[in-house]
Amino acid sequence: MDKESGYEAWLRYRPCESEELLGHYRKYFNRVWFRQGLEIMRTAMQELSHGAGIITRCTVRLCDEGWQGAGIAIGLIDDFSELKDLLGNEILGTLPEDGYLMRSIEHEGLPRLVLAARSANGMLYAVFHLLRLMKSVQRLDRLNIAEHPRNALRMINQWDNMDGSIERGYAGRSIFYRDDEFVSDWSRIRDYARLLASVGINAISLNNVNVHERETLLITDELLPKVAQTASIFSAYGLRTYLSINFASPRQIGGLPTADPLDEGVRAWWKERADAIYRHIPDFGGFLVKADSEFRPGPYTYGRNHADGANMLADALEPHGGLVIWRCFVYDCLQDWRDRKPDRARAAYDHYTPLDGRFRENVLLQIKNGPMDFQVREPVSPLFGGLSKTNQMLELQITQEYTGQQKHLCYLPSQWKEIVDFDTFALGEGTSVAQIVSGKAFGRRHGGVAAVSNIGDDQNWTGHLLAQANLYGYGRLSWNMEIGEEEIAWEWTCLTFGKKEKVTDTICCMLLDSWSIYESYTAPLGVGWMVQPNHHYGPSVDGYEYSKWGTYHFADCHGIGVNRTLLTGTGYSAQYPSPQFERYESLQDCPDELLLFFHHVPYTHRLQSGKTVIQHIYDTHYEGAERAEGLVERWKTLEDDIDEGRYRQVLDRLQEQAEHAKEWRDVINTYFLRKSGIQDIHKRPIY
Amino acid sequence: MDKESGYEAWLRYRPCESEELLGHYRKYFNRVWFRQGLEIMRTAMQELSHGAGIITRCTVRLCDEGWQGAGIAIGLIDDFSELKDLLGNEILGTLPEDGYLMRSIEHEGLPRLVLAARSANGMLYAVFHLLRLMKSVQRLDRLNIAEHPRNALRMINQWDNMDGSIERGYAGRSIFYRDDEFVSDWSRIRDYARLLASVGINAISLNNVNVHERETLLITDELLPKVAQTASIFSAYGLRTYLSINFASPRQIGGLPTADPLDEGVRAWWKERADAIYRHIPDFGGFLVKADSEFRPGPYTYGRNHADGANMLADALEPHGGLVIWRCFVYDCLQDWRDRKPDRARAAYDHYTPLDGRFRENVLLQIKNGPMDFQVREPVSPLFGGLSKTNQMLELQITQEYTGQQKHLCYLPSQWKEIVDFDTFALGEGTSVAQIVSGKAFGRRHGGVAAVSNIGDDQNWTGHLLAQANLYGYGRLSWNMEIGEEEIAWEWTCLTFGKKEKVTDTICCMLLDSWSIYESYTAPLGVGWMVQPNHHYGPSVDGYEYSKWGTYHFADCHGIGVNRTLLTGTGYSAQYPSPQFERYESLQDCPDELLLFFHHVPYTHRLQSGKTVIQHIYDTHYEGAERAEGLVERWKTLEDDIDEGRYRQVLDRLQEQAEHAKEWRDVINTYFLRKSGIQDIHKRPIY
Repeated sequence: MDKESGYEAWLRYRPCESEELLGHYRKYFNRVWFRQGLEIMRTAMQELSHGAGIITRCTVRLCDEGWQGAGIAIGLIDDFSELKDLLGNEILGTLPEDGYLMRSIEHEGLPRLVLAARSANGMLYAVFHLLRLMKSVQRLDRLNIAEHPRNALRMINQWDNMDGSIERGYAGRSIFYRDDEFVSDWSRIRDYARLLASVGINAISLNNVNVHERETLLITDELLPKVAQTASIFSAYGLRTYLSINFASPRQIGGLPTADPLDEGVRAWWKERADAIYRHIPDFGGFLVKADSEFRPGPYTYGRNHADGANMLADALEPHGGLVIWRCFVYDCLQDWRDRKPDRARAAYDHYTPLDGRFRENVLLQIKNGPMDFQVREPVSPLFGGLSKTNQMLELQITQEYTGQQKHLCYLPSQWKEIVDFDTFALGEGTSVAQIVSGKAFGRRHGGVAAVSNIGDDQNWTGHLLAQANLYGYGRLSWNMEIGEEEIAWEWTCLTFGKKEKVTDTICCMLLDSWSIYESYTAPLGVGWMVQPNHHYGPSVDGYEYSKWGTYHFADCHGIGVNRTLLTGTGYSAQYPSPQFERYESLQDCPDELLLFFHHVPYTHRLQSGKTVIQHIYDTHYEGAERAEGLVERWKTLEDDIDEGRYRQVLDRLQEQAEHAKEWRDVINTYFLRKSGIQDIHKRPIY
Repeated sequence: MDKESGYEAWLRYRPCESEELLGHYRKYFNRVWFRQGLEIMRTAMQELSHGAGIITRCTVRLCDEGWQGAGIAIGLIDDFSELKDLLGNEILGTLPEDGYLMRSIEHEGLPRLVLAARSANGMLYAVFHLLRLMKSVQRLDRLNIAEHPRNALRMINQWDNMDGSIERGYAGRSIFYRDDEFVSDWSRIRDYARLLASVGINAISLNNVNVHERETLLITDELLPKVAQTASIFSAYGLRTYLSINFASPRQIGGLPTADPLDEGVRAWWKERADAIYRHIPDFGGFLVKADSEFRPGPYTYGRNHADGANMLADALEPHGGLVIWRCFVYDCLQDWRDRKPDRARAAYDHYTPLDGRFRENVLLQIKNGPMDFQVREPVSPLFGGLSKTNQMLELQITQEYTGQQKHLCYLPSQWKEIVDFDTFALGEGTSVAQIVSGKAFGRRHGGVAAVSNIGDDQNWTGHLLAQANLYGYGRLSWNMEIGEEEIAWEWTCLTFGKKEKVTDTICCMLLDSWSIYESYTAPLGVGWMVQPNHHYGPSVDGYEYSKWGTYHFADCHGIGVNRTLLTGTGYSAQYPSPQFERYESLQDCPDELLLFFHHVPYTHRLQSGKTVIQHIYDTHYEGAERAEGLVERWKTLEDDIDEGRYRQVLDRLQEQAEHAKEWRDVINTYFLRKSGIQDIHKRPIY
């Protein structure tokens, strides 16, 4: 087999191997009618010609007159008004903005496939959907699909810096920037736009939320032409471009003495900048803002609150239809580790619930999934559901900062599904995070999901080839949070490696086991951290214990954990409504996997599993390292089924993971044996 | 008082304030006869004119004919042959290379001062000595001094990189390099040469022992002209220039397929390079080599030993009189922390004693003071005295890598004196490290001392102004290891701040207390490390515990320490001859301050002091932080006695230290309370 790099990712098209199916497909692609018009439609045509051309080994014949004679007809809903009854009248009427229908019909005695969308974006998504079906070797004569995204905003956050580095990037350097300038070769950006659009992403922020000196200039006339050029690439794929801005810009680059959001000069400055941006980029999305967080400037400097800050920017963007996405990752990062009263986990809720209802309509609060910071395991942030009169967005992290840095396999949709399915009980039972962030629960106009990208200029995009599944999975989930993680894993594997049962079964199972494996050999029972400072890779149990970051486990020779109960602890548990509050508050009912997040317990405390905490630590770490070793063995069974290039690169990573899992196991187990003095009942080697 | 920066350091001349003494001095400086000749003599004249000119507020009148009419006569010994009896015939005869006499005499009825030296360097040292006396407001009419250095080689190692960074530098950027080139303004280098020569330093290596890509080129014709230009500045002050070389140079820049030291092509390549270097720099000193150490290349790559490697370089330099200084900092830096059998402390001894007698005459082994790496407290390396047929050099670290990084006050001559006075018993009682490294003990031709510099381009050279005392003290000790640390502290304070009893008393006491203070709030009882990884600043008790660097304390809930005994441990103690071996081997006799370096003991073990280990930890950390606070208070008593510039900068550092000492105290105490579960008997706050 040829040596592949993984560059094509899940848009890897290969000729259909079944002669029967090939004949079937060719009947349809003999003539494809396409709605002319916007650039996105041209993009959709290109994608269909490219993908279907390879699959059918024929040139796709496009035509722009008379859909009635075509095997496939792709257009806006109005183009098919005569088919209303056939396509389903009421569905056509209620199909949301980016939705589409895909329906096999008979017309004039011949089989036809109709793709009808509400918008140009919908057409593009329909085309990618059709290609997915063909790659999954499905027939086209019995399709009856109506699709639409559940979240209006489906966003990717790049944490790229203009020097070419990527904050928390584990797959090479930036594909956008080099040496404080934009790159000169844009082809890679276009290929990235394809990947994102193919899974329904419709928004991208182009620079790190920590906006440094050079990036502060992205909103100036010097750099806007380049931003616009980049934005036009994404526009062609239906993505709107956002910029992370520096709240202190009026002072730092505007020559004003202040950045006070209530200052008239400041307000005028931002309005002028917004006008300028929209002159360059008419479909500009808006601003992403990290303010008063980890030493970034913000409204607190001027005695103003975050509503003041966000609304000021919102007023500047509003005439153009722009949005302000305001991050809620605000906490005291100069905490005194000696003082157990403050609790970083409380911070987002405490900061933002008092401001509920005070933000403009075009402001969204972007809330990290958990109250800490993208740990392997944390509870869901109680701020979801804590706000009812404010637009909310969920922030996830695709880049594996705390989850193995794309050296370890960690399939994140497993984690994300638990998050979006979490019942906040905000409006009684059944108020899931998914319903809140979509805006549905509280009838909010704007809502959605954002995630930090995991790509760089590595040939395979994500460093670990299998980490592509996380980017794919994010896109699919952001479209519809009800899709199961198993289904996503199967789709991705099939699209990436072809539909071969042994391959898809093996890889899917590896993916689906991987989060649990990674969790089992790292920090136990939801306590988090225990990573080496700064770079966050590898074990250091006390790495964040005596720090200013609010990240502690309080392990001593008797026990471990953070008491976040209302009765005797920080009171964090009370940020959840009943019955979640009672569940977390109770030592008996608290789920094992979050026990140490909510309770400080002796090592001899018995879990719901029946094991003591200390024995659980030993056991999971031994099992975890063994299961990591097992991933290597499972992958090796595929040696003859996967091209050498991709087989090798994954094998290398899995072997590195297995080795490193042993280091995790031994450091954690040794730490706790030395600290507790309690022996492993199985007498395995601990040092 | 004016605002001073500290740039002048201890060469800070101010007019003599006593009218009586001024008259006394002027009589001498009315006419100064100076031996003409070498450039160093011109340097000496300039220094005398400059210094004495300011002190006496008169132009120093130099003459070059007829010393007999001069108040001061400075020349080579032969110039004063007619004074043999007066000056002491036998002293004149035996005065070593860099020695000198300073004698007040009466000649033709008038008071005269004669400075007679064996060499030009001696003349320069005599002049700096004279200026020191005058700055200490001493009279010149009863001098009878014969001085000579006890160590032939008194060297400074710069760890400067050509990109301008300094490895383990805490006082700004390099004064030698910027952006991969030499600096264009050489005046600062000249001022540095003055400082070094004034305390008798006679050798300097110009680049980091970790020789990176650019620095590998320093021995090429491209960069040698600039090296020569730098070397000429130092030559004028009596310092020979050395370069750190990359052992793999023949491969990396010579185009050869190997760097095997026994390969004829490699040997010829180094000979050719040595010839080229001496064409550019006739008084070039030689090479400093870090080989097979911390990922640097070396002879092991080719199955050769370090004698093969060093001798090959020695043969290339020998025709020119050059030396090879070969560092013994060789150990396994990929150790498995789980395995308690290997012991990094053993490494230097184990590597080098088998090679004793196999090195060329112009090779010196440069041995770090302790077996680990410049910790606040370690035993003296047993390699001193372990070699009897090999030239040895002591390596010290002036830059405060593990001793507070020039933010904390730590006067290092206190530590160094313990090291050089240490009795190795190599030739029976009384074989001190000082006697071994000077070459005296074993009758070796070459010997000396080297130290890693603590200067950078900060205006006051050393970041912490009081850290200048370490550079000064190193020079003075390298000249004569018998000088006491108190005397050095007094000299330096007097030269730097003027002779004012309150000032000198206060500062001297602060200096002399400082090592003990720093030790008391950092890692306890000689166990070392417990610093944050990589940068080595601030506490992290487990920072090096689960690492590959061979740096462990093995603390568990029962006890702490490394068992390095022969009976039950790594056997390191047996690298010392009796009675040092027995002293360290014995749990009873082992000095408290090194207990945990040699023994693993329970927290309840009673020290010779009568305290338990755990209570000692609590007590010393509380006392240490209090004493650090006390340094601030003591300094504040000098507010009216010291110019504002220097007063402020020292106060700022001391306050930072006092704050950081509390962090050290609380982290260490908390770590051990949590681990041991044993309460402080004084019930002070531990967290």
